[in-house]
This record gives sequence, C-alpha cells and structure tokens, in this order.
Amino acid sequence: MASEQPLIRAMYPVKGFRLGTVEAGMRYPNRKDLVVMTWPEGASVAGVFTRNRFCAAPVELSRQRLVSKPCALVVNTGNANAGTGGQGLADAETCTARLAEVLGCLPEQVLPFSTGVIGEYLPVPTLLAGLPACVERSAESEAAWHQAAEGIMTTDTRPKGESVRFEHEGVVYTLTGIAKGAGMIRPDMATMLAFVSTDVSIETACLQQILNEVVNCSFNRITVDGDTSTNDACLLVATGAAGNETVVSTDQPLYRVLSKQVAVLCQRLAQSLVRDAEGATKFVSVVVEQAGSRQEALEVAYTVAHSPLVKTALFASDPNWGRILAAVGRANVDDLDVAGISIFLGDVCIITGGGVAADYREADGQAVMDQAEVVIRIALSRGELTETVWTSDLSHDYVSINAEYRT
Amino acid sequence: MASEQPLIRAMYPVKGFRLGTVEAGMRYPNRKDLVVMTWPEGASVAGVFTRNRFCAAPVELSRQRLVSKPCALVVNTGNANAGTGGQGLADAETCTARLAEVLGCLPEQVLPFSTGVIGEYLPVPTLLAGLPACVERSAESEAAWHQAAEGIMTTDTRPKGESVRFEHEGVVYTLTGIAKGAGMIRPDMATMLAFVSTDVSIETACLQQILNEVVNCSFNRITVDGDTSTNDACLLVATGAAGNETVVSTDQPLYRVLSKQVAVLCQRLAQSLVRDAEGATKFVSVVVEQAGSRQEALEVAYTVAHSPLVKTALFASDPNWGRILAAVGRANVDDLDVAGISIFLGDVCIITGGGVAADYREADGQAVMDQAEVVIRIALSRGELTETVWTSDLSHDYVSINAEYRT
Repeated sequence: MASEQPLIRAMYPVKGFRLGTVEAGMRYPNRKDLVVMTWPEGASVAGVFTRNRFCAAPVELSRQRLVSKPCALVVNTGNANAGTGGQGLADAETCTARLAEVLGCLPEQVLPFSTGVIGEYLPVPTLLAGLPACVERSAESEAAWHQAAEGIMTTDTRPKGESVRFEHEGVVYTLTGIAKGAGMIRPDMATMLAFVSTDVSIETACLQQILNEVVNCSFNRITVDGDTSTNDACLLVATGAAGNETVVSTDQPLYRVLSKQVAVLCQRLAQSLVRDAEGATKFVSVVVEQAGSRQEALEVAYTVAHSPLVKTALFASDPNWGRILAAVGRANVDDLDVAGISIFLGDVCIITGGGVAADYREADGQAVMDQAEVVIRIALSRGELTETVWTSDLSHDYVSINAEYRT
Repeated sequence: MASEQPLIRAMYPVKGFRLGTVEAGMRYPNRKDLVVMTWPEGASVAGVFTRNRFCAAPVELSRQRLVSKPCALVVNTGNANAGTGGQGLADAETCTARLAEVLGCLPEQVLPFSTGVIGEYLPVPTLLAGLPACVERSAESEAAWHQAAEGIMTTDTRPKGESVRFEHEGVVYTLTGIAKGAGMIRPDMATMLAFVSTDVSIETACLQQILNEVVNCSFNRITVDGDTSTNDACLLVATGAAGNETVVSTDQPLYRVLSKQVAVLCQRLAQSLVRDAEGATKFVSVVVEQAGSRQEALEVAYTVAHSPLVKTALFASDPNWGRILAAVGRANVDDLDVAGISIFLGDVCIITGGGVAADYREADGQAVMDQAEVVIRIALSRGELTETVWTSDLSHDYVSINAEYRT
C-alpha cells in the first residue's frame, strides 16, 4: 500500500438509507461477505457501470433495473458471477427475487452486485441463506456503514469510506459513500465498487447527470495498470429524507452544490483505492496542464501513468526522467512539439524546450522521488486545460500478488 | 529470456557491405561498443525511425541525411545521445564529420546511431579515438557480421542476426541483418536498432517502400511493455553488387521476392528481440482473426499483449482466462459483440459465445500455459483479417532489471 493513513474517517448516517452486513460464508469462513442496502420508495437512484463488453450478469441486471425505481441492493464478495452466461443471469435473478420477497418489493426493484473470482457459478443457496439476517440487522447507523465498508472488501487491505456534511440555505445535508477495489487491478478479484448515498431530494435525471460527470473526474481518473474489470459499478442513491424542495433542474443552486460535494467525496474514495493498490509503495499524481483539449491532456497523462518503465522507476525512487520524456514523446497527440513541453517532478523542472533543464540537479529530482507521494507535472504550451490522473508504482509485490494469486 | 535457443545462425556476407567493430571504451572497458559499416557509392539506403517526438540527436541527423546518398554509418553503445539538445546534435555532427574525413566522403553521407543512457552528453573524444581502428578492421566477412552483432548490444543477453539466400531467375541474392534491443523496453537503454543489407540492385524509393511495409509487420508488431524508445531505428542498405538489372518498380517480380524475403528476415529478427526480452520466461503470440479491419485486430491484440494482468498470469503459467476475456472486453473497438467472440489458448477453446466453453477443462489450459511458447488466439466473427503481435510475460526479473537499473 502507498501509505499507512486510514482510508476511512467519520461516516455520517444518511436518513432513510439502511445497511446490513453478515458473514454468509460465500467463499471463506469468518469474513463479512454479504451486504444488503435499502432505501425508501421514491428515492432517486443513479448508476454508472463498467464499459467492459464482457460485463458480469449482475452488472447487466442492475443496468436494466435502474429504471424500475429500485429500493434495495445486494452485494456479495468471493464470486464475481462473471463469464457465467445464462446461468449467471438466472442466479442473479433468483437471489434478487428472494430479497424482494423478504422486503416486500418487486424483484426488478432489487439491484445485484458481485465481486470476486471470475468464471465460477454463484453459490446461490449460501447467498439465499444469508439474506434474512442481512435485512434483520439493517440499520442507518455509523456502525452499519463501517460494517458494509468491510463487507464489500475482497483483497483490499483496508476499508474505504468518506462522508461530508454541507449546508445550503439553512439545511444541513449528508453525503456518505464506501468503495472497494485494490485499484481496479485485481486479477480474479477485478472489481471496483462504490455506493454513495445522500438525503438530498433530487430527480433521477439530475442525479444521474451528477454521477456521470463526477465518475469521469474521479473513478475514471485512477489507473493502476489500465485493466478494466467486468464488474465495476458506482451507485448513487438520494433518499430525499432531508425534505428540501426537490431539485429538478441543473440550474438550481443546490444542484451545483451537491455536484461539487459528490465530486469531492468520489475523488477521495477514488484516491483511497489507489493508496491501497496492491504492491503500491507510491501515490502518484500525473498532472497535464496547458493542454489544447481534455482528450490530449488525458492521452499524455495515461501514457505516462501506464508506462511500466515510469512505474518501475517510481518503485525504485529513481528520478529517471528519460522514461517520463520517452512516454510523453510517444503519446498519441497530433503535432505535439517537444520544444514547447516542460516536465516537472514536484516543483523541480527536469525538461524544458525539448531537453534537460540547464539547472537540473539529480539530487533535486531524488529528493522528490524519495517521498511517498509524487507529482509528475507536464506542461504542453498548447492551451489552458488541465487534467489529473492518479496512479501507483509497479513493484515486486504487484508481480507476486498477480502471478501467484491462484497458486 | 524466453528461450535458450541461439538467436544467431549463419551470417552470409553481402557483397560490398563492410563492418568494423572495436572496444572503444564508450562506457565500460573490454566491451565491443563502436561499429562502422560502409558500402559503395550508388547503393540504395532506406530507413525507418522512432515515432517518439523526443527523438535523439542521431535519429534526427540520420533521418535528414537519408536523401544525401549515404555510404557509411557509425553506431555507438553506452550513450543514447538523447535529451541532449543542441549539444547532442553538434556532437553527432562532429563524430560523423570525422568518420567522413577518414573515409573520404562528405559528412552528410555518414549516418549516426546511438544507444545507451539517455540524458548524458556523448563522450566525443573516446568515440573519435575509436574510429580509425573501426575502419581499418572493416571486412565483408561472416566474422565481421558476428562482431558487429555483438558491438551493437547493450543489455541484450545474446547477439541477434539472421541471413537468407534466395534465388531469382538464376541469380542468388543475399540478405543479412543484425538487431539489438531487449524488446524495446530497456530503461535508460531504450533502443531497438536493426541493420539489414542485401546485394540486390534496387532504386531507393522501392527499397524504402519495402522497408515501410516490412517494419509494419515485424518490428512494429512486437511489444514488451508498450514503451517506445527515443532512438529506435531500422536501416536497409542495398549495395547492388549482385549486378541484376536495377529494380525500379513495385510491379517487377524481384521487387515482390525481395519484399517477401526482407519480411521473413525482419520478422525473425523482431522475434529474436522478444525472445531475449528482459525478465521474459515466455514467447507469446497474440493472434486476432476474423477481424473487420486491421486496426481493430491490432487494437484487440495490443490490449491483450499490454495487459499486466495477462502478462503476470503468463509468468505464473496460470490459465487465468478471465484476464484475457477482460482485456478483450475493454479493447477500444466500436460495437464489439461478445456473443461472436471465441478465445483459444493454443488449440484449446476457452471462451465462446460470451462465456466459458462448455467442454473447457482447466487441465487443458494448464498444459498450454506450461509451454515456453504460448499462442493466444482471439476470433472476432467480424471479417476476414488476421493480425499477430508478439510479446513476453511480466516477471519479477522485469521489475528488478527496470527498478534497480541505476542503483
């Protein structure tokens, strides 16, 4: 892990949003592995799902059911129910139908989420047996959020949660979320999941727009190795329990306030995933500024963030700027003129005008590289736009964890 | 290294093409590190260079000078003369001017190539001191080719060379080439270099067209980690010493014969680079077939070949097909329908119709993965086109070599 700082702080309960967690024995004994979350009918629910075409059965079902006024979800770990074809879909339907029965709602109002090994069938009886206790233990409390944050973990070393309270026109709102995923990079355990809830009253279309925009600048801006899972999902539930006049337009002040707060919360959750990325010893921000478009900024940022040579240099705390330069130089951007490019390690300028900066000293670069958090900043001299991508380094532990995972 | 088989076999001399190699002491003592190659005026010379925008000074100079009827080249190892700005260019000019003086040709007829550490200035006096002996020892012999193959190595563990003789209308032609590069992935030593010569008489425009096409299906089809160096270059020299009627058109039979032979030779050289890729324990062919376009075939192939999760599974000999499936699923191809996709490990079908094949047995996948050479084949059901990319696995040695390189 990139740092030892705790990845969960205060978890303020969200009125109307309940969570229940049990040890169902999905794969291992004595491990929280099944979570149910419920919220009142009439809440707004927004979701964003993996763009991987081999998406898992629960992702397919949850995506379809977003329009059916969902009021509950169930998450299991230990098994991703991915690559399981028609049987996988049937299994997810069986489990959500049973939960609907317990809760007294329609099956299509229940969203399934799974994370764990790909290519094995879901242990349906085990999951079904755990559901009643999950519902029974459901609570709105801070403790319930903490348990759920643990309940969705697979190979994460620490639970991740964030919570903010913000005030708008005299009303205090709460926004709380949990996430799991060792940086989207887990082999068989390849899943990023995030569940965020707020008590704001807001129409579904507005909520979905907030989530789309926020995911793009948070969970879609982290990378460990560029691999996208079959099960990635992020859900945002607005219970409306705060009792405000419902937000129905993106022009309303509360829309903008909520959007900003969700962005802050999701960026923190996303960064927590990178901090806990497996094998990672560094937390790295790749900032591309003075870009002519967001697309070219991201192309340069991801080329650097995905470069195994840059990542192994980071692991070694080696200010090996030639690798950063080479990665920037091969980024797929038309007419990129190296004469206009400057590259900084922290505040130290290493490259300017296509070559090494005249006053660059290796000791200065080394001092930046020795830190646990490193900023690589690339200025393109092509415009005004800035994009940031967060990533980790490439270590022996990364290879061990991913090579020896099934042995 | 992926296999212990020798990466150099017979090296047939090419009439008119001479090579001289010395231990100049460019970086380390007792190591062949400076090579001069010369050929008669009137030969045709074609070149392909790195597309990295941060290209090194010698690349810039060689690219410019291709039109100046070159008749010699000089290659040094130990120093890439990259990221060295105006001083780097001046140094490359000084060295090639001195070689021109020794040979009695114009400075712009000499092409410089450098490979080694990025960001340090070329040790010009050392290089200049080695040139006369290089020229003096130049010979057309098989031994001269062998020495040059060693002389361009940096961190390669074995020299790489290939040679073919082919007959066309009663004339026997020779085609011989050498290459270096531990898979385009070396950190400070980030260079792929290849020098190929033939005695065919052929106009420069035709020769360049052959090289463009061949590089695209050989050196541009290998990847270890997707990193492109600042110094990559491939040169093809046709001395014309065979005395055939000069090839002046792509319609001539000899054009097609030569093109095919150069392709075979360059593919073998390219594969040699992957076999010697550092840390590699496997030689992997990723074949994408039934594609609708070459571009989509390559997009899928590279997404699989670059996936750290696939590469660590290969290192572990783990038939972890979920990772291959996830990589295919995130490839940037519009409207990719998973229902039409089949994935094979060797001849074993693992995925068909979007899920695991009904008769797949882990033992069958394991048997394929246990081999030193692995074929991953992906059929898209979208068309008739096939593309192949060659790559290696991601091992502990890869991380060690690249993280500890400068320590």
